Amino acid sequence: MANPITQLFGIRYPIIQAGMVWASGWRLASAVSNAGGLGLLGAGSMYPEVLREHIQKCKKATDKPFGVNVPLLYPDIDQLMEVIVEEKVSLVFTAAGNPKLWTAHLKSHGCTVVHVVSSVKFALKAQACGADAIVAEGFEAGGHNGREETTTLTLIPLVKKALNIPLIAAGGIGSGPAMLAAMALGADGVQVGSRFVATPEASSHPHFKSEVLKAEQGSTELTLKELTPVRLLKNPFYDQIKKLYAEGASSERLKEVLGRGRAKKGMFEGDLVEGELEIGQVAAQIESLLPAETIVQEFITTYNTTLERLASLD
Amino acid sequence: MANPITQLFGIRYPIIQAGMVWASGWRLASAVSNAGGLGLLGAGSMYPEVLREHIQKCKKATDKPFGVNVPLLYPDIDQLMEVIVEEKVSLVFTAAGNPKLWTAHLKSHGCTVVHVVSSVKFALKAQACGADAIVAEGFEAGGHNGREETTTLTLIPLVKKALNIPLIAAGGIGSGPAMLAAMALGADGVQVGSRFVATPEASSHPHFKSEVLKAEQGSTELTLKELTPVRLLKNPFYDQIKKLYAEGASSERLKEVLGRGRAKKGMFEGDLVEGELEIGQVAAQIESLLPAETIVQEFITTYNTTLERLASLD
Repeated sequence: MANPITQLFGIRYPIIQAGMVWASGWRLASAVSNAGGLGLLGAGSMYPEVLREHIQKCKKATDKPFGVNVPLLYPDIDQLMEVIVEEKVSLVFTAAGNPKLWTAHLKSHGCTVVHVVSSVKFALKAQACGADAIVAEGFEAGGHNGREETTTLTLIPLVKKALNIPLIAAGGIGSGPAMLAAMALGADGVQVGSRFVATPEASSHPHFKSEVLKAEQGSTELTLKELTPVRLLKNPFYDQIKKLYAEGASSERLKEVLGRGRAKKGMFEGDLVEGELEIGQVAAQIESLLPAETIVQEFITTYNTTLERLASLD
Repeated sequence: MANPITQLFGIRYPIIQAGMVWASGWRLASAVSNAGGLGLLGAGSMYPEVLREHIQKCKKATDKPFGVNVPLLYPDIDQLMEVIVEEKVSLVFTAAGNPKLWTAHLKSHGCTVVHVVSSVKFALKAQACGADAIVAEGFEAGGHNGREETTTLTLIPLVKKALNIPLIAAGGIGSGPAMLAAMALGADGVQVGSRFVATPEASSHPHFKSEVLKAEQGSTELTLKELTPVRLLKNPFYDQIKKLYAEGASSERLKEVLGRGRAKKGMFEGDLVEGELEIGQVAAQIESLLPAETIVQEFITTYNTTLERLASLD
């Protein structure tokens, strides 16, 4: 059966690995692409020349399509985009910013451009700017996230109804049954983040991966809404943030404590006390590290068995 | 195909209409039951003798099973339970309280008891208390809601894995595709609230119903977490609450402003300025008032067409 997402990217399965900071280097991206999904390099935590190195290594590690995810708030974005064009990366996901800024430029260089949003309004804006597909991300997603707190279950039908380009669902999707749920709601494919953090291939620190496996219901919270909302795994750093809120701290004070490099410290250097740990609610369902290929295969197997289990109602 | 929920309740379709305050009287409950789902009277907004009247009218209006939903924090709960037992209501949903309090009593009178929770922990507790089934309600649901903010997409697989009694999903389910999504995640049936508010049969005030139809993405927020968390439709009363938060108001001050009778004022008397309006995120998807029977039929039709549309992946 024709699927708009597999056709758009030239991949086997409509499973996209999210380009996450400090997790998604060439090892993870190439493993997902080799398994039939779409791997993305997370450029948000890479200097331009580091990204170039990852692109080149990824090309060597897979002959399948892969892409790059770029947060549009990246300070040296011009240099990142130059690397992407020079290295002839043909699939680019842009997030956390205005799709007007780069979509036309990337498309003029032959790129397929996908923009990540958390609302109908921005989905329509990205479509108007020429995006080839949309990722719509629900409240349960890890990392930076919408202010409107719309969950994936509510968001996907709204975006689907408004849009006429292919739609990828993100947020809370860590298994084949959840993928089937997203497709039932109208998505053409899924973007999976947290589940791919718990792989040997993710570049995240082993301490962070262990915390992801330990996570339970209620282990994360979407916070820092005054700055850039982010879903954090609860740890001593999170407790500091909560304490500041309880004291009625200003945005300036929050920003000061947040400082710089917190995410690297937590997720890449494994400092579970002072570091910022970003993960989705679905971490509560993740119980073991698995190779990326096994994850993709399990998604497909359980998607199919779940579909077979569901009977029509009469 | 055998479905644990249709078998447990003796109904045709595994669709349960939520027993909502100021919406779910005998007209709505009997209409849903007559359409093949399970209608529930919302006892939370009824004096005991009013509940008796609704039970008696509901019995006259349908020969199908129906039930009563009881919030366990209800002040004169002994009297409500007396009415339920005297009137031989055989299906009782309990919510917002400790399942230890009434489950054994109701079961000793031959009732099937279902308990509503928003976490794995309380699902297990309710199961241990002898509940026959569980409703697990996600963050996107209207009305009173869990503190852990776990969305339906994340919550249902967690509860399903932990539980060995039938599971009903609630929160964000306003259409057949969303019902299919919930069933894919492991639910045996769904509880639907907001969609049934937008019916001619709901006892809610027409002004409130109009606001539900106008709702868009971002029109609701889960707030008042310090007291009892509740998802509110944004209106001038909600603005008052937000202003109090911005001023750093104490819980006592919040409670004082909330006062008594706000929900009745808003949802039953139609005061859109001073009243509290409770609804789920899914209100953004609701565009017209429809008879309850039509809603049930549309759920089934679109559940089936969605299931047919989904192809296995290979």
